[in-house]
Amino acid sequence: MRLEGGTSVTLRVEMDKERVTFGELVSVIGQQGGDIVAIDVIQPGRRKEVRDLSVTVIDPSVVASLSAAVQAMKGIHLVNVSDRTFLLHLGGKIQVHSKVPIKNRDDLSRVYTPGVAKVCMAIHEDISKAFSLTIRRNTVAVVSDGTAVLGLGDIGPHAAMPVMEGKAMLFKELAGVDAFPICLDTQDTEEIIRIVKAIAPTFGGINLEDISSPRCFEIERRLKEQLDIPVFHDDQHGTAVVLLAGLINALKIVNKRMNEIKVIVCGIGAAGVACSRMLLTAGVTNLIGVDKEGAIHRELSYTNEVWNEYARMTNPHIEKGPLSEVIRGADVFIGLSRPKVLAGEDVRLMNRDPIVFAMANPDPEISPDEAGPYVRVYATGRSDYPNQLNNVLAFPGIFRGALDARASTINEEMKLAAAQAIASIVTDEELNEEYIIPGVFNDKVVPAVRKAVIREAIHSGVARKIPSDFRNMD
Amino acid sequence: MRLEGGTSVTLRVEMDKERVTFGELVSVIGQQGGDIVAIDVIQPGRRKEVRDLSVTVIDPSVVASLSAAVQAMKGIHLVNVSDRTFLLHLGGKIQVHSKVPIKNRDDLSRVYTPGVAKVCMAIHEDISKAFSLTIRRNTVAVVSDGTAVLGLGDIGPHAAMPVMEGKAMLFKELAGVDAFPICLDTQDTEEIIRIVKAIAPTFGGINLEDISSPRCFEIERRLKEQLDIPVFHDDQHGTAVVLLAGLINALKIVNKRMNEIKVIVCGIGAAGVACSRMLLTAGVTNLIGVDKEGAIHRELSYTNEVWNEYARMTNPHIEKGPLSEVIRGADVFIGLSRPKVLAGEDVRLMNRDPIVFAMANPDPEISPDEAGPYVRVYATGRSDYPNQLNNVLAFPGIFRGALDARASTINEEMKLAAAQAIASIVTDEELNEEYIIPGVFNDKVVPAVRKAVIREAIHSGVARKIPSDFRNMD
Repeated sequence: MRLEGGTSVTLRVEMDKERVTFGELVSVIGQQGGDIVAIDVIQPGRRKEVRDLSVTVIDPSVVASLSAAVQAMKGIHLVNVSDRTFLLHLGGKIQVHSKVPIKNRDDLSRVYTPGVAKVCMAIHEDISKAFSLTIRRNTVAVVSDGTAVLGLGDIGPHAAMPVMEGKAMLFKELAGVDAFPICLDTQDTEEIIRIVKAIAPTFGGINLEDISSPRCFEIERRLKEQLDIPVFHDDQHGTAVVLLAGLINALKIVNKRMNEIKVIVCGIGAAGVACSRMLLTAGVTNLIGVDKEGAIHRELSYTNEVWNEYARMTNPHIEKGPLSEVIRGADVFIGLSRPKVLAGEDVRLMNRDPIVFAMANPDPEISPDEAGPYVRVYATGRSDYPNQLNNVLAFPGIFRGALDARASTINEEMKLAAAQAIASIVTDEELNEEYIIPGVFNDKVVPAVRKAVIREAIHSGVARKIPSDFRNMD
Repeated sequence: MRLEGGTSVTLRVEMDKERVTFGELVSVIGQQGGDIVAIDVIQPGRRKEVRDLSVTVIDPSVVASLSAAVQAMKGIHLVNVSDRTFLLHLGGKIQVHSKVPIKNRDDLSRVYTPGVAKVCMAIHEDISKAFSLTIRRNTVAVVSDGTAVLGLGDIGPHAAMPVMEGKAMLFKELAGVDAFPICLDTQDTEEIIRIVKAIAPTFGGINLEDISSPRCFEIERRLKEQLDIPVFHDDQHGTAVVLLAGLINALKIVNKRMNEIKVIVCGIGAAGVACSRMLLTAGVTNLIGVDKEGAIHRELSYTNEVWNEYARMTNPHIEKGPLSEVIRGADVFIGLSRPKVLAGEDVRLMNRDPIVFAMANPDPEISPDEAGPYVRVYATGRSDYPNQLNNVLAFPGIFRGALDARASTINEEMKLAAAQAIASIVTDEELNEEYIIPGVFNDKVVPAVRKAVIREAIHSGVARKIPSDFRNMD
């Protein structure tokens, strides 16, 4: 099942067809644990021929021995071995295209000077026309400073680009949103705020990404205050929306209600805070945040101001102590922390039918094997276990809806509606312990999220446009 | 010939086919000065039918009377009239596309997490790999603050977007460069410098556009110093390159040499300074800049520091006085100023075979009718007169070459080579008073400019990569 662990390589081989057959080559590759998935003839020839073989191996460590075995064959010259993931990234993964061709002076005079002048002046006279006459209508900036990239940490803006390009691809492929990566060579909170404000005229929305905590809170809060387009820190809110969607469905299985359960959120960084807020909005009352120092509660004072605020709104019974104590009697464990912080022993202390969402990257807070005997519902962020809670379920549809409604912000109501929409894709008949959340390629997700987001944007008064499919409703 | 003055409108009409024929409609439109260029049936019907008629009119003022005449016809309901230029700009003119589809988890795991992590780490270990593994290889930012847009002036960043999108289209359509507009909501020189530096990790080059003088000089100079990717203010250097290209060929016609001629440059703003520098680099020695206060010379002291520097390097004979005096004996007049500052009387005072490049926007320094009796070679920036000196001839090929050579800057040698390459497209057989410069859609221009720019980038030591077509040369 561990699809992700596999590696794809492309072997370029020169074959001397009088000395070796293609069948012999195929069997050597197979014996070495490789699976040929595609063949391209690069240079055909009567005797010598150059072919590119795309080979998948489950265990990346066998690439070396496989290559050596191929190279050792008589009549074979191994020209090179390329990692297909690197090949896929060559030159970047996105492009800018013109929507209309410019083939002659007449075209040129309309898309550029002099015809463009009247379009400019129309916007100059009414700035809201930028939403219809420029790319602002459908374009989102994916902004990162490269300080908290995936599980890799602070790798800098250049190295963050492949992730932001990937994100831009997902925006386009899943929701038709034009997204463009902007990786910033600064980590200064004030400077990042100034820059994003300054570049905002180009964009209809800002997706903040992989900016480390606690700077991400201040950056998002200030930008939301100062800009009239949606600002959304996906690591916080995308994660929170998807976790809530999963929890809505998991609670149906165990037949418990939001306002009855005890929830432990482990790891009170950006995602932990946002997720906790979302759950409180959704009706959870007994929620306890746990970090390295144990349960966060209002009788302590923290240097991180975000934690003081967090303490005030959570842990109503002022429970204290390490995770292994406060976990007692919990209905739900949500891990947004580090691998292996939860033991099977801890899960045994939970209430009946424990729900464990173990989101740590790359390895969850508790492995499925260790959790298995004790949990009722188990979910992770990984694609190789059941119940993948992946942000990809949330951000494309949320921005699709926000852009279509020309929303000035993405508020709590819109996020809550998005979570409910994602949860609703799993029907009562389909719902079971191993299927609480739709797959990332389920094509019902984006339309449902979009619709829910637009409905709440209109209802909460932040929509500046009623999309045509909403005009005859209500 | 004034193609540009025409307007295209789309008339949406509902026809009652029992009361009117399509032929009657066509003749009314024709009588009113309209030319139907396309017809789309929007809603077919046995009796009533809705059609969109694309109509071109030479004189935009007739749209109202044409619409009224159509509306007055029996059996016709004119639903609406849309300006085709506006329709073309709806939703903006560029899009972001994925280079590869994401159709399943396997694709996702390669373009995004977890596969993307090894690509990120490869760049983290060797930052130069960003030029091959991200969009940096082929992507340019088109940066403006909207302070000096076309002839429109300071219209702000939102209203500047349609121009920057048009520029991005030209980059793509003419040279395959992915360009993305970044319109900045600040006019502060230091802030613009900081922002462009900060966003640079995403881009392989920076095209500054429509930033007013004198801020543009400081912004460009500092960014060139501090960034290791090309920074090019097109209003200055694109214009300078194309003017020089035109002058190279115009001098062939009049059989004069660069080092013999007296050149008047009128309008010493961003373009005027850059153009003067370029001409000095190209061998001109007797060059006099003229602005509102008359000839700029080294015996005066100016509050604009750029002018003091300008005075030191130009006007070797310290000529003084207004344009009408210093024009005496000039071989070349280059106008980058305002409409109608040059009179026929002035041109009469020039040396034999006067060359006049009148680039003021939208109307030149002297009209072709007024200049006609006196000039030998006349050129403007407009597409509706012969000899259009348009930046579109320069920037696509210059950036194509700079990106392909991974140049760290665009230096004087590269710009000079670009001008010579553009001039060389006009053969000796083709060259005449009305054809000194190739047309903007001449497909020989970009490859020739690219090649010249790469050659000089390698020669001057700023290339960080030798493109494959240069590897077996020299």
